[in-house]
Amino acid sequence: MSQQRKIVVIGGSAAGPKAASRARRMDLRADITIIQMENDLSMASCGFPYYVGGVFDEREKLICTPTGVIRDPNFFKNAKDIKALTNTEALSIDRSGKTVIYKDLKTGVEGTISYDKLIIATGATPRMPPVKGLDLDGITTLQSLKDADYLRKVRDEGKIKKAVVVGGGLIGLETCEALQLAGIEITVIEMMPQILMFLDWQLAKILENNIRNWATNVVTNNAVTEFLGTDGKLTGVKLANGTELPCELAVVAIGVKPLVELAEKADIRIGSTGGIDVDEFMQTSDPDIYAIGDCIEIPNLISGKKVLAPYGDLANLEGRVAGENAATKNVARFPGTLQTGVCKVFNYQAGTTGLSEAKAKEAGFDPIGVVTASPDKPGFMGGLLVISKMIADRKTGKIIGFQCLGPGDVSKQVAQAAVAVKGGMTVDDMVNADLPYAPPFTLAIDPLIAISHALQNKMRGLFTGISTVDVKKKLDNGEEPFILDMRGPGEYDTMRLGIGEVLMPLGALRKRENELPEDKDTEIICYCKISLRGYEAARYLQSIGYTDVKVMEGGIMAWPYPREK
Amino acid sequence: MSQQRKIVVIGGSAAGPKAASRARRMDLRADITIIQMENDLSMASCGFPYYVGGVFDEREKLICTPTGVIRDPNFFKNAKDIKALTNTEALSIDRSGKTVIYKDLKTGVEGTISYDKLIIATGATPRMPPVKGLDLDGITTLQSLKDADYLRKVRDEGKIKKAVVVGGGLIGLETCEALQLAGIEITVIEMMPQILMFLDWQLAKILENNIRNWATNVVTNNAVTEFLGTDGKLTGVKLANGTELPCELAVVAIGVKPLVELAEKADIRIGSTGGIDVDEFMQTSDPDIYAIGDCIEIPNLISGKKVLAPYGDLANLEGRVAGENAATKNVARFPGTLQTGVCKVFNYQAGTTGLSEAKAKEAGFDPIGVVTASPDKPGFMGGLLVISKMIADRKTGKIIGFQCLGPGDVSKQVAQAAVAVKGGMTVDDMVNADLPYAPPFTLAIDPLIAISHALQNKMRGLFTGISTVDVKKKLDNGEEPFILDMRGPGEYDTMRLGIGEVLMPLGALRKRENELPEDKDTEIICYCKISLRGYEAARYLQSIGYTDVKVMEGGIMAWPYPREK
Repeated sequence: MSQQRKIVVIGGSAAGPKAASRARRMDLRADITIIQMENDLSMASCGFPYYVGGVFDEREKLICTPTGVIRDPNFFKNAKDIKALTNTEALSIDRSGKTVIYKDLKTGVEGTISYDKLIIATGATPRMPPVKGLDLDGITTLQSLKDADYLRKVRDEGKIKKAVVVGGGLIGLETCEALQLAGIEITVIEMMPQILMFLDWQLAKILENNIRNWATNVVTNNAVTEFLGTDGKLTGVKLANGTELPCELAVVAIGVKPLVELAEKADIRIGSTGGIDVDEFMQTSDPDIYAIGDCIEIPNLISGKKVLAPYGDLANLEGRVAGENAATKNVARFPGTLQTGVCKVFNYQAGTTGLSEAKAKEAGFDPIGVVTASPDKPGFMGGLLVISKMIADRKTGKIIGFQCLGPGDVSKQVAQAAVAVKGGMTVDDMVNADLPYAPPFTLAIDPLIAISHALQNKMRGLFTGISTVDVKKKLDNGEEPFILDMRGPGEYDTMRLGIGEVLMPLGALRKRENELPEDKDTEIICYCKISLRGYEAARYLQSIGYTDVKVMEGGIMAWPYPREK
Repeated sequence: MSQQRKIVVIGGSAAGPKAASRARRMDLRADITIIQMENDLSMASCGFPYYVGGVFDEREKLICTPTGVIRDPNFFKNAKDIKALTNTEALSIDRSGKTVIYKDLKTGVEGTISYDKLIIATGATPRMPPVKGLDLDGITTLQSLKDADYLRKVRDEGKIKKAVVVGGGLIGLETCEALQLAGIEITVIEMMPQILMFLDWQLAKILENNIRNWATNVVTNNAVTEFLGTDGKLTGVKLANGTELPCELAVVAIGVKPLVELAEKADIRIGSTGGIDVDEFMQTSDPDIYAIGDCIEIPNLISGKKVLAPYGDLANLEGRVAGENAATKNVARFPGTLQTGVCKVFNYQAGTTGLSEAKAKEAGFDPIGVVTASPDKPGFMGGLLVISKMIADRKTGKIIGFQCLGPGDVSKQVAQAAVAVKGGMTVDDMVNADLPYAPPFTLAIDPLIAISHALQNKMRGLFTGISTVDVKKKLDNGEEPFILDMRGPGEYDTMRLGIGEVLMPLGALRKRENELPEDKDTEIICYCKISLRGYEAARYLQSIGYTDVKVMEGGIMAWPYPREK
């Protein structure tokens, strides 16, 4: 029998334990050790916001198996025969000697462990803004279980009334919801012109408007320049525009930075994004060392560019691949990411897969996108709105990106699209997709198929779309297109844009042709609530000779600006 | 300008109006007429069970646009310039003269309409069992709006206490739920050995067990041989095994038969399944005649075989294709179906896409399948069980079928799988799918990815699976495999199979090796609640020399028989 293989995993959060467990199943004789700096192992860190917000109260659920066994060193020993050294820091890697020097953080005692294969899963650390006052009490992140404990205590004590969340990304927005559930008044502060940079601006703005409905303010295009305090305690933040916001708590969530110091010191190649460079086997520049999780960079499958993708699901998939390869040989592959993501923010969900239109252009594609709005189910089953944007590559017809948000079942829409993008499917493929239909779950034409129809129509030139953003720009520039709202008077009374539109219900269009512009070259913009009727009207207007008819995509539901009503 | 094209559509339910509307948008000048036998147009017939069950009360929602406009002839005239002749029966098609003879059912007056292109969307009619007593009062189907009105009245009056539903397919089970909601005691009677024939037996049985939890009985392998009555009123049904079940209402839902008489009389080619034969343009054997919806047969995309697929979503997709082609030329294609379906039955959902294992074998594949059970979300977010079966083609590795059921988000699992099957994706492709993950929506490893992992492991020989059905067969045959339940004692106290298993918590396995059979060739079967721990145990037992270790797939959750506890 060959010698027992020694596998060492540095990092015990998500990717590391997954790699160790997979390695164990692939090589039942291997000697496997996890070195973990923290006290806990395999924490459900994506669950922290829900524990903080009180969605559940049992802290142990964050560190237990589904059947209630704590995932501590005993569990790993007994169930998986994996040694886990917790509260232990890996100090350095000696690649020539193939050892790791570590320190027991409780005793201060150092030790050396040798490896045949090493897996680095050192994770990432929260970025902090380079401003004054960062050391004040009341400033935290939501990255570690310690952070979660701190914020849960804040919630349970109920003393803090005002907080800011610095950063409008996924974690920032989840934290915002958690703190609002805890009864705290929140302001989200985002340096960029929009929250959730994975969305195109228009969709991000619609989400932002909804967040404001929940007694929360959102400030974009503005940054914290100083944390203000008295007696070492946070009392407020100062913004770039001079505003001062009083608050007793600030949660910083402006992203994370891969923790690569250990790898860097060992001369393992670091990529241009700052993550450890790995190939599809998760192998680093040293063939005996793999790296996985938030500390690495991986290819975006659409653009081909290396990106940082610090997502919990990918950490698991990468861990599975590295664990197998370290235990056997390079057989398993992890090809890369679509940077798929989703989050819940109050009654809305927002998600994405693949590239946004902006990112697609950056990556050299000639993208064509369309925005639609639709209920997720029939009205009689309580359907809720989803606003979607699908992006295709004009050259190949392939779907290269999809975004979605709204109170409806966004996560399903994004999931379906993520499989389509992964499968390299074209818009034409999705036009006739055979999805599971029954009224409790979706429409006879699922929103994802409907947007495929719309994009196919647009690619074939059946209509010319215009985004709500471009309509607003035209109006702001003093242009005067002829604008038609194709809804009924009752709908108009309840809700309307008030941008100089003429109300002309679709059913009256043919009778009221005399009210249309005489000049057939006049620019006409049609819309309705979701622009299905707007599309029908546009087709008709084209047929009677109008040469410049546009459909405002997504209709009123996709209008990110204030309405008259 | 060319002459105005005349398009006639026979059928005004789902496919027909969609075709007419698409034709209108593609040819704004065409003369378009719908001939509809019923009084209503474009009814949401998939919504009937929910109206009957009182999920909503507004009948008009079944025949209105989302904004509340009734889809009557006026609506079609004004909004779409489509003429709709309701209460009008198409009597015959004269293909050489290119006319349709029709009769106004209210006046009895006949007329003739000529066409350049004809679209047949005559739908299907409910099959009825060839037994005595079919004319009794109290026997109905749930196919037409009239049926829905009748059953809704039954619900509102609240007089009927006992009913039978004849047929355990999609419509039968939806009807069963609707009537149960109406406070009626139901027995579902299915002639085949199982309900929902699109599921493999084991999964269907698990669903059947759950239906029985809702004060409903399910009888399989038994047929109604006579409807019994007094004074012309239904009083009960007699079954093939001699049982008589008293009931005052019987809803027959044993499937539908394509309505092809009109096409047949006109010598349009009918396929071997009994549906009208069409190509991917939806064109019949007469190039000027298209056919769509429940009256046609279409290819199953995986088996290549022609099938009847009377689903509302497909009717719409087919209508869109025929409408465009009839209005322009053959440009749009509808390639076929995956026979994707889903239904809600009380707290469970059940769905499928592609082929079942049984159907895959029939179609000449060498299928390999695996069954898994998993929560759909983390426990701390209230995750609910989904039991899945994935089927791949051993030769190509492609996913060719997927089934799922349980109280969890089954429709999302099936939707994701339907896109993967449509895209021709392999198990290896899905193993690293990048799906949208956040705790409110799914697990870090989505159940569909987890089952792909399991199937990949199985295809690579990392474990040998055995179905719960085959375990039961072994026991019934008097075989005595060594059976290991790898759960904890607390779990065992709450729920257990009681099939002679030895309880050995995974964490104790390494210490209790001495309790294992001495003969390393003994057949060992491992499981736990969902068989993840069963799989870990199996890997270990193999490593210490056991040669015949099997994992009972899906664990206790996939056990379709009574349990000891």
